[in-house]
Amino acid sequence: MAVRRIMLTIAYDGTAYCGWQLQPGARSIEGELNRAVSSLTGRETRVTGASRTDSGVHAMGNVAVFDTESMIPGEKFAFALNQRLPEDIRIVSSRETALDFHPRKADCIKTYRYSIMSARIEDPLRRLYTHFCYYPLNAEDMREAAKLLVGVHDFTSYANPDSQVLLEGGSAVREIYSIDIEWEHDRESPKKRGYYGLITVTIRGSGFLYNMVRIIVGTLLRVGTGLYPPSHVSEITEAKDRQAAGPTAPARGLCLMSLDYDDTKGGNAS
Amino acid sequence: MAVRRIMLTIAYDGTAYCGWQLQPGARSIEGELNRAVSSLTGRETRVTGASRTDSGVHAMGNVAVFDTESMIPGEKFAFALNQRLPEDIRIVSSRETALDFHPRKADCIKTYRYSIMSARIEDPLRRLYTHFCYYPLNAEDMREAAKLLVGVHDFTSYANPDSQVLLEGGSAVREIYSIDIEWEHDRESPKKRGYYGLITVTIRGSGFLYNMVRIIVGTLLRVGTGLYPPSHVSEITEAKDRQAAGPTAPARGLCLMSLDYDDTKGGNAS
Repeated sequence: MAVRRIMLTIAYDGTAYCGWQLQPGARSIEGELNRAVSSLTGRETRVTGASRTDSGVHAMGNVAVFDTESMIPGEKFAFALNQRLPEDIRIVSSRETALDFHPRKADCIKTYRYSIMSARIEDPLRRLYTHFCYYPLNAEDMREAAKLLVGVHDFTSYANPDSQVLLEGGSAVREIYSIDIEWEHDRESPKKRGYYGLITVTIRGSGFLYNMVRIIVGTLLRVGTGLYPPSHVSEITEAKDRQAAGPTAPARGLCLMSLDYDDTKGGNAS
Repeated sequence: MAVRRIMLTIAYDGTAYCGWQLQPGARSIEGELNRAVSSLTGRETRVTGASRTDSGVHAMGNVAVFDTESMIPGEKFAFALNQRLPEDIRIVSSRETALDFHPRKADCIKTYRYSIMSARIEDPLRRLYTHFCYYPLNAEDMREAAKLLVGVHDFTSYANPDSQVLLEGGSAVREIYSIDIEWEHDRESPKKRGYYGLITVTIRGSGFLYNMVRIIVGTLLRVGTGLYPPSHVSEITEAKDRQAAGPTAPARGLCLMSLDYDDTKGGNAS
């Protein structure tokens, strides 16, 4: 029978998982998908993921592919796999793609969203999906700082030094297309240096180094609380030193929103 | 030392609990609060709750009181108790109240919100706090039906027959002040009978029978999916029979938003 490559768009709550990648003795998103696809197709099958998100990081649109001889129509896999997956992982859509389409090698635009709740008291209904911050935040300063990161830069300062690419001597030059900071602020509490409320930081780019989004957010939080002036971000970038930037913001606030593949590269072939 | 009565406003994620009320061998909100207050004040203390929410139901503003000889200022209890509570329960605020204030006996306006996600595929990041519905919903029809429930009615059809009040021969007459249905609908999928998207049903009233909000929502869902015409709700109410109404909507979609006590009755004394 002919082999086909199936592409899955996947949403998940990362709270209960060790991350995307298989790890012995731990529950992973990859492991759950391998199990569900193997059970559905009746053959031991392994998926190849686009983004190997860390433990606790969420997704609304991660992508994976697998090869199969199954006769199930491409778009029917979503429904059939959802019957075999735990409720914190959902296949949003599925379709057949080109046999040479590789979700990590094909060009795409990646969109991440980081959610921050600044308040005096945590909101228990948001705790799993937002980072909680006790300090009021100045969104205007954060926007000013974020502008300095948009474009092509060497992001060494914003990468975990354990990044495989950097350990192998690869380039830390990346392009960020946009950083949008949205702000639902509390009616109460106009502060000298900021407001309480919910902030979402949406970052779009062609590629990100290990922990790059979380380190950028950790740095923007230092700007938002007044610890760094916005212009200090340029000095951090120029330092090309992880020690110069802010801390890595916690995983729970991060969500991989979408991976938009260039249609001509096979991602949308069906 | 003088005894004072402290009033707590409490938010919680009900997912991991058997409900508000103490139950042997199970984790309850009441049990966690008793433990935290006793540990803080150094005396075995029991709280009295306003609304004994069911297993899986959430709250943004439930209320409880306790009596103490502790010298801690009323508004400081929130912070001190939060240090002793699990992260899915938060004291939003605390203050001293009148010694004769009883959170179940004092008059108040109760506001509940029920969240429904209608979509082809569940959203794993909303699953704990919304009821998922595979069918597109017609919000206009739901609004029309909801109007028929506002005002003073006998709500026997919308009460769990195990309701203590009804078993004791009490009245099922209650007043609903308002039902607001808000609608964030999906860009995709205009349907003949409705749309996909997120619907929130906000119900305000002076008092509710056991499961009343969830049975009202279960009934409105039958209207939203086209199973009942909106006008059928009047017939359901007139039947005074639980069998006439729709099913009890699942606990996870329900959140007790606030209890607003009349200031003159002692709720806001401090």
